[in-house]
Amino acid sequence: MEKLLSHIQSPADLRKLSTDQLPQLAKELREFIIDVVSVKEGHLGASLGVVELTIALHYVFNTPEDLLVWDVGHQAYGHKILTGRRERFDTNRQWGGISGFPKRSESEYDTFGTGHSSTSISAALGMAIASQLKGETEKQHIAVIGDASIASGMAFEGLNHAGMTDANLLVILNDNAIGIDPSVGALKNYLTEVKEGRNPRQNNMIRSLNFDYSGPVDGHDLDKLVKELERQKQLKGPRFLHIVTTKGKGMKLAEEDQVKYHAPGKFDRITGEVITIAEENVPPKYQDVFGLTLVELAQQNEKIMGITPAMPSGSSMKFMMQAFPDRAIDVGIAEQHAVTLAAGMATQGMTVYCNIYSTFLQRAYDQLIHDVALQDLPVIFCLDRAGLVGEDGATHHGVFDIAYLRCIPNLVIFAPLNETELRNILYTAQLSPGHPIAIRYPRGRGESADWKKPFKIIEYGKATLLKEGSDVALLTTGTIGNNVIKALADADNAAKFAHYHFGFVKPPDETALHDIFKKYKVVITVEDGVVTGGFGSSIASFATEHGYNAKIRILGVPDKFIEHGSIRDLQQYCGIDVKSLKDIFSHY
Amino acid sequence: MEKLLSHIQSPADLRKLSTDQLPQLAKELREFIIDVVSVKEGHLGASLGVVELTIALHYVFNTPEDLLVWDVGHQAYGHKILTGRRERFDTNRQWGGISGFPKRSESEYDTFGTGHSSTSISAALGMAIASQLKGETEKQHIAVIGDASIASGMAFEGLNHAGMTDANLLVILNDNAIGIDPSVGALKNYLTEVKEGRNPRQNNMIRSLNFDYSGPVDGHDLDKLVKELERQKQLKGPRFLHIVTTKGKGMKLAEEDQVKYHAPGKFDRITGEVITIAEENVPPKYQDVFGLTLVELAQQNEKIMGITPAMPSGSSMKFMMQAFPDRAIDVGIAEQHAVTLAAGMATQGMTVYCNIYSTFLQRAYDQLIHDVALQDLPVIFCLDRAGLVGEDGATHHGVFDIAYLRCIPNLVIFAPLNETELRNILYTAQLSPGHPIAIRYPRGRGESADWKKPFKIIEYGKATLLKEGSDVALLTTGTIGNNVIKALADADNAAKFAHYHFGFVKPPDETALHDIFKKYKVVITVEDGVVTGGFGSSIASFATEHGYNAKIRILGVPDKFIEHGSIRDLQQYCGIDVKSLKDIFSHY
Repeated sequence: MEKLLSHIQSPADLRKLSTDQLPQLAKELREFIIDVVSVKEGHLGASLGVVELTIALHYVFNTPEDLLVWDVGHQAYGHKILTGRRERFDTNRQWGGISGFPKRSESEYDTFGTGHSSTSISAALGMAIASQLKGETEKQHIAVIGDASIASGMAFEGLNHAGMTDANLLVILNDNAIGIDPSVGALKNYLTEVKEGRNPRQNNMIRSLNFDYSGPVDGHDLDKLVKELERQKQLKGPRFLHIVTTKGKGMKLAEEDQVKYHAPGKFDRITGEVITIAEENVPPKYQDVFGLTLVELAQQNEKIMGITPAMPSGSSMKFMMQAFPDRAIDVGIAEQHAVTLAAGMATQGMTVYCNIYSTFLQRAYDQLIHDVALQDLPVIFCLDRAGLVGEDGATHHGVFDIAYLRCIPNLVIFAPLNETELRNILYTAQLSPGHPIAIRYPRGRGESADWKKPFKIIEYGKATLLKEGSDVALLTTGTIGNNVIKALADADNAAKFAHYHFGFVKPPDETALHDIFKKYKVVITVEDGVVTGGFGSSIASFATEHGYNAKIRILGVPDKFIEHGSIRDLQQYCGIDVKSLKDIFSHY
Repeated sequence: MEKLLSHIQSPADLRKLSTDQLPQLAKELREFIIDVVSVKEGHLGASLGVVELTIALHYVFNTPEDLLVWDVGHQAYGHKILTGRRERFDTNRQWGGISGFPKRSESEYDTFGTGHSSTSISAALGMAIASQLKGETEKQHIAVIGDASIASGMAFEGLNHAGMTDANLLVILNDNAIGIDPSVGALKNYLTEVKEGRNPRQNNMIRSLNFDYSGPVDGHDLDKLVKELERQKQLKGPRFLHIVTTKGKGMKLAEEDQVKYHAPGKFDRITGEVITIAEENVPPKYQDVFGLTLVELAQQNEKIMGITPAMPSGSSMKFMMQAFPDRAIDVGIAEQHAVTLAAGMATQGMTVYCNIYSTFLQRAYDQLIHDVALQDLPVIFCLDRAGLVGEDGATHHGVFDIAYLRCIPNLVIFAPLNETELRNILYTAQLSPGHPIAIRYPRGRGESADWKKPFKIIEYGKATLLKEGSDVALLTTGTIGNNVIKALADADNAAKFAHYHFGFVKPPDETALHDIFKKYKVVITVEDGVVTGGFGSSIASFATEHGYNAKIRILGVPDKFIEHGSIRDLQQYCGIDVKSLKDIFSHY
């Protein structure tokens, strides 16, 4: 059979097909996604689940004139393939390749960049209101949002506003009962009742917000989808279409284990089996050091509780949820709530480990300041995915945290050098709770397979001298210090360099800093965060405050948004990979 | 008649009264609040509205064992007066006096500090879950939240989580249809239908979230309130009680003009008339410079739109809303939505002025990074109440903004010296939209009544030399520069000091900085924000980066939370008032 997909360079080509041909196109599109993602990796399940919806949307609506916003965006692979990026799709998420998320600079079909969840309703409503003002009455504005994302407060704010307007907005709820992990919350239970026809008050909740509710519709039935979207196109004002899909649709294993196949890595294209390379003695993932250590600590300290906003798997909070179901909570995509919930628990004497990806803590910045730090409540924030995160790219790098946390009074900031130190700071933080603390650590694996050592207390506010040196002081914080260790390991002039690890970014070890500035005329700081206002900046401020005249060089992430690629690619771009550091050091 | 109120030192005394006596107590409490607030100023209307609810809560529940959280907290005056702070109530909001908001360090009855809205459900749920774990099954947890606050996304997140728990949580919705300005949104319309009995789907929305819904109950009927709360006390799991009150209840003018009497300043205790001192030729409020200038600009530029999250009066966006009802939107307490809505509009070519108090932009930090700056959308953020805000205190100071904004790529940061410059940057920002910009300006009045001058373009990225000097360079940003001008005006050694105004915090004027560091060996920076990571810190980083050895002194807000008091008190505490600056300058 002649392939349909290969003839589609844009949705205009798609619209030339008859509706009879669409199921065949769906089949080809699904296979194309599986072909590429099995080899190149990426987000699989979400995109497989919306193959039919993607085709139907571009078939019915006049994109890019009509404006389509994909919430989160990791389900937009089909959209990318149908909108002129089929031939580049094998560069997905690679350095220099296309982004794994919609991106305005990449295509006019990507009307709004996404990555973080729950922004689509607000963005599409903004577009719709702008169109009203411009008199563009025929233009359509569509937000596609999942049931995990719609439970986030921001989405509610968008619905609440849209419902009082007459904007031409269609919100499509893609209800598959799962985000990355299974969805949670009262709203999810309600939606499940609605779609299963068990709810006598069916649909009223959305109608209460003054939306025209339709559905539930089978999101894999192209015929029904196209008819329903055609009907929606004729309606005016805020509408809400509830469709039901299966994440991973069309690939048996992906449907059966939706968490694993969210982003499975490489897998066998025929059997679907994930390809794992057996490795012995590999260092642990930092997330597992967190998750497993928390369980150990919780066994000894009954006041310990865990909170994750929708990342039980990604943060490895799942270990705590399995071991102590009453003492670990997935609150869904609700970072604001997660932080203030932790604060509420802390007022009652609980020791709360609130694990939030660095990039997502940006969602709860005010709660951190206003509810935790201002009241000096000793919540322990565990910031996974700090630093450059790699393929997820600009939306997800955890590079701002040191800068935005450092200005908050009462808050302690710690970045461990390796998994052993992560383990020990997790242990130390609960021993004598004082101030709130943010512990930042990266995506990926640590340094040594032999990490599960007896706990040691980390002395408060102390820096560590890792290596003596004669001429230059290297100051690092966090795991990027290992790049410095490696760069020095085979540097000819290594004897010139002292290396200090500042686990505590705040409070800084002022005794050590005085010693350093008295001894060294050249100081180089290295961090895997933004140089503007970060760790190095704090060292520079210390030096000027105390009148030290050392030459200070600050290495880290420059003042621009960093794209996607491997962490190694990105570190190289920023000049903080081992090789770049070695080159820099060679000039001293 | 013997006064009841004067015998109540704590809720234990209150509970000795018969229910018959409660209306008399309500009368006395209301009068006491009016007596004090008429003279000492403060938040009037909200506290008058919950007099009966406050009495009923402390009468029925066993506070402080039972845990009561007041959302926002500006309605908590009655609570403070009944919980041991009657005699200190006349120090409300003054330097060294009691806080205008609940504050944990002030009283064991203040279980959770508030100030920013919509935190109460999360906090109380955290307490309730902690009690469950501790086996404290009889302990009650109550969140009192208004209809404006419950529409914020964070409150929804709290409800959505609570609804899937069996936590002993009572959420009381204090529905008076107004926040500071009248409430907006689809939820508000729905709640209004419910309380007016016009909604056939009555109560279902809250029940959809798995709450036991009761109400609406007349919130001024003590008998009904006490009975209903007694009934609620016997129930288990998440409950939602809808009560209806009138903001300003018991004071005619306050009921009639609820916006004006939210925080009316001094007023005549008998007539209720607000006391205004006729002043001629007073400088305008910065908020009015914003509001009035925006209308002028909108008359010339049809792409201009305005957005405020629930502050039409406080930000003076009301002028734009009156002049162009279609082009200015109050989205309610929904900062996250406000920012991404602005981004959505900007994608369609609109020039959006999004006005958010500095302290509340903390609520939309991720949206600013992820939806605006990452996409380099030229939204114009107007940050009112930047710097020290005075009597609202620690929860409300806009002192972190420079530090948390400076690390965001693409974002321009500008702080005008005075109202003329505010006017001109508002004009300049819309002429050739490039990057997003944050314009920060303070609460209060400007410098000159003669502010409405013809527009002038402000040159991008340029600092201004305000005064030449021989020995020391003073670098300031924003209106605090006027303190420096005044301090120099009658300083004996004024000739020593050059004064540069950096309107642009980012990008900094590097040409000027090179000139300054080449010429001066002593540099003093002054800002009305935190010194950690702020403007002065950026100057220190510049100097070290370029190897300048000047002595740099950074003046601003120290690394601690600053309490309430007059702005003058607080500036003095931070050492940046005119007198402190003059003292500092005298040592050079």
